Amino acid sequence: MNRTSGSAAQALEKFRELTRKIKQYEEILGVAYWDMRTGAPRKGIELRSEAMGALSADMFRLATSDEMGELLATLAEADVYRTLGEIDRRLVDEMKKDYDRNRKIPPELYREYVVLTSKAESVWEEAKANNDFASFAPYLEQIVDYTRRFIELWGVKDTPYDTLLDMYEPEMTVAELDRLFGELKARLVPLAEAIAASPHQPDTSFLQGTFDKEAQKQFSLHILKEMGFDFAAGRLDESVHPFATGLNPGDVRITTRYLPDDVVSALFGTIHECGHALYEQNIAPELAGTPLATGTSMGIHESQSRLWENIVGRSLGFWQRYLPDLRRHFPGRFDEVTPEAFYRAINVVQPSLIRIEADELTYNLHIMIRYEIEKMLFNEGLSPRDLPEVWNAKYKEMLGITPQTDSEGVLQDVHWSGGSFGYFPSYSLGNMYAAQIMRAARRALPDLDAQIAAGQLLPLKEWLTEKVYRHGKLRQPAELIRDISGEPLQSGYLCDYLEEKYRDIYRL
Amino acid sequence: MNRTSGSAAQALEKFRELTRKIKQYEEILGVAYWDMRTGAPRKGIELRSEAMGALSADMFRLATSDEMGELLATLAEADVYRTLGEIDRRLVDEMKKDYDRNRKIPPELYREYVVLTSKAESVWEEAKANNDFASFAPYLEQIVDYTRRFIELWGVKDTPYDTLLDMYEPEMTVAELDRLFGELKARLVPLAEAIAASPHQPDTSFLQGTFDKEAQKQFSLHILKEMGFDFAAGRLDESVHPFATGLNPGDVRITTRYLPDDVVSALFGTIHECGHALYEQNIAPELAGTPLATGTSMGIHESQSRLWENIVGRSLGFWQRYLPDLRRHFPGRFDEVTPEAFYRAINVVQPSLIRIEADELTYNLHIMIRYEIEKMLFNEGLSPRDLPEVWNAKYKEMLGITPQTDSEGVLQDVHWSGGSFGYFPSYSLGNMYAAQIMRAARRALPDLDAQIAAGQLLPLKEWLTEKVYRHGKLRQPAELIRDISGEPLQSGYLCDYLEEKYRDIYRL
Repeated sequence: MNRTSGSAAQALEKFRELTRKIKQYEEILGVAYWDMRTGAPRKGIELRSEAMGALSADMFRLATSDEMGELLATLAEADVYRTLGEIDRRLVDEMKKDYDRNRKIPPELYREYVVLTSKAESVWEEAKANNDFASFAPYLEQIVDYTRRFIELWGVKDTPYDTLLDMYEPEMTVAELDRLFGELKARLVPLAEAIAASPHQPDTSFLQGTFDKEAQKQFSLHILKEMGFDFAAGRLDESVHPFATGLNPGDVRITTRYLPDDVVSALFGTIHECGHALYEQNIAPELAGTPLATGTSMGIHESQSRLWENIVGRSLGFWQRYLPDLRRHFPGRFDEVTPEAFYRAINVVQPSLIRIEADELTYNLHIMIRYEIEKMLFNEGLSPRDLPEVWNAKYKEMLGITPQTDSEGVLQDVHWSGGSFGYFPSYSLGNMYAAQIMRAARRALPDLDAQIAAGQLLPLKEWLTEKVYRHGKLRQPAELIRDISGEPLQSGYLCDYLEEKYRDIYRL
Repeated sequence: MNRTSGSAAQALEKFRELTRKIKQYEEILGVAYWDMRTGAPRKGIELRSEAMGALSADMFRLATSDEMGELLATLAEADVYRTLGEIDRRLVDEMKKDYDRNRKIPPELYREYVVLTSKAESVWEEAKANNDFASFAPYLEQIVDYTRRFIELWGVKDTPYDTLLDMYEPEMTVAELDRLFGELKARLVPLAEAIAASPHQPDTSFLQGTFDKEAQKQFSLHILKEMGFDFAAGRLDESVHPFATGLNPGDVRITTRYLPDDVVSALFGTIHECGHALYEQNIAPELAGTPLATGTSMGIHESQSRLWENIVGRSLGFWQRYLPDLRRHFPGRFDEVTPEAFYRAINVVQPSLIRIEADELTYNLHIMIRYEIEKMLFNEGLSPRDLPEVWNAKYKEMLGITPQTDSEGVLQDVHWSGGSFGYFPSYSLGNMYAAQIMRAARRALPDLDAQIAAGQLLPLKEWLTEKVYRHGKLRQPAELIRDISGEPLQSGYLCDYLEEKYRDIYRL
């Protein structure tokens, strides 16, 4: 920045201040959001929501202000831009992308849309409870209509749906996803069929019964410590829907939900959220307080939760080390169970109707169904009214089962009621990134599997910090995965990993 | 408002919007403040404080904006003002008072002061820990200097210290406090001396020992329920320094601190904070979302915590009803203790050095010492450097004891390090208000004492809601106490109450 001219230097100073303030609003709103999900008294919710809405609107106003526009115009000038440091350049790119996108939507239209989606979420909740798609359909139609108008205003990329994808996974395209998901489908559907036909189904009987909540919590806390979760920079609480939130790198909170009749649900949920948390806790200090102090995309974020939950947490080595600890937390319950038997039981594959309860393999099939349907909505003009029929046909085709009700079918996910089209692919992208990153980690750390089996999880955490976490949003996902693995994202590593794992478990 | 003209109606609409937004900022900041005090991770505090500071500054900017000034000018016009409804009139009064006061301080001066006091608080903390008044003195001198300049800018009322008093207790004056505190001193000092000389000192041995924290918590929760604390509109948590915070009337939170070797400390702390909370929970719905949805003054707020903690919670009737419940929570610990013995033990009077540990009687003497010293600082030019000497002399005169260190003397309270001069009198005003309000309650509810002794606490809560709580900040303290008791605040009721209580306990 030495060569930045006087007025450009002033603009840079103001720009940094403005982005810092936006981040500060986001942080305080994040505290209020966490609070609302973890125990805010019921009777205060309505006023609290209004207050949060007012501050959100102010934050949005800052990010789309004329002042922001002028500062960005100055700093994006080629002569000025090339004098900026790496962090400032990325900040300008990131804020400009937001600014350009948001300024294209007339404020009145956006307000209507916010009102619509906040109403739609409660309509959806009731429709799901009453198995009543018809009552939700008019809302969904409107949300799709608004989204189609937004796409036009934002500008259609290769296809309209490309415009949506880019919001969650920068630079990701329909063409690329078609290829990746096509390859996945070609290898994972036959794998799921072979598993279903295998006579070697794991025994899961010892996972049944009632498990003391306090013991579950203590074991979860134990595993968090082992993973290197920093309790001076975070905390674990309970909520109905588990989540992770990085308020700042020194305050990253995760939640879980303890089920009395399931000993592993809260545990794997905690490991999953801890994966997200390790990312947020280990972002480089120089990014703290800027909008770059967060994960670079939904897909990369999800890769970290899934790497830890599935590739590490559901591995045989992990349970060779931690099954004895689990036994100590639940005296007498697992004395007769071997690590191999436990490993097989927690890796059962079973086609099912509900995405969030799906196993590691078929989960990807649930995602591909949603991806194909969203493409049909935005690229092929599918009417939302026809969704139940399309949904059920896809489940039959991909998983061989058919929902008996819309509640366990097209109504199961919250995403569409909030207008989050283009988000679902992130989950499977996360699985693919995770497998590709883990392969690179194994090359870099030849003892990795032995370390995991010995309960030495920190070398992996340190390597991921170096390669992924510390960069925050400074690197785009495509750049990150190339730097780590030497090639773009591939589907093959996930397929290799799953084939190898399940061949062993199901003796295929 | 029917007769409000067109442009005035517009101004009113905008004014309501602006005050609502200020209240919304305050609410979200309140959540972050609560969070910081109840368990926010240590490493996130620094960035969190900066973010809170930024939002506070924005809130301050809204309240002192030119827009606010113009709206207030329009609405305060006699022709317009008289067409306003009661709530809008009070809102205008309240916001105008703040606006006028804040606009008189040059922003640069105020910023310097904020930096100074936030630094001074940590200097004070260290000075107290190290018994090192000299290191704190330069800060205290500067804070007093700034405050003296602020008083000049705000405008000196009858005396400079009057200007400070008005910030915490509207319309309260030095002349009035001199009279009230003079009367209190004349009756309470001899009472404390008679108590000290009494051969009938209560036995407190059964209060000693170790008391299970979980049982303390359960008993506190039980008493909260009995008092009518609404758990759907509030919660109880733990913090180092107990507090109550009304985020909105549907979300009022209190905290307490459990001491393993003290069975009543957390309990009375909880009852105290619950008194504050009942006030905030029961503010009329039509005030919710406005800056009037809070207590009308520090003194009236404190009257509610003290009425419940001391006049109800430390009464014989209360323990006739609740000692059996306490026995159930601590099996075997209080079987031999009678309600009378318990009542006497929790009402021991003992001159002591530390205000926050003082009994109900001598507490007022601690407050009068601070009042006299603050008056000397602002009305008589006392130098802060001479505070330790003055402090120790006052303690000798009023309580007959002398601090051995400044840590247990002039350095004990946080208030001055934050510039809160004029705040201390609120505590004794609270005691006087409480006694006067309770006398009115007894007249209105002839069975009140029998009800308390039967564990029927809700009739009192309902009466207080009607007379105090629901009005929020709609009525000024002087108006409120006149409406309730038919006369202005008197010292006599507190003296009567204390004399009667301690004559019985100490057989005077």
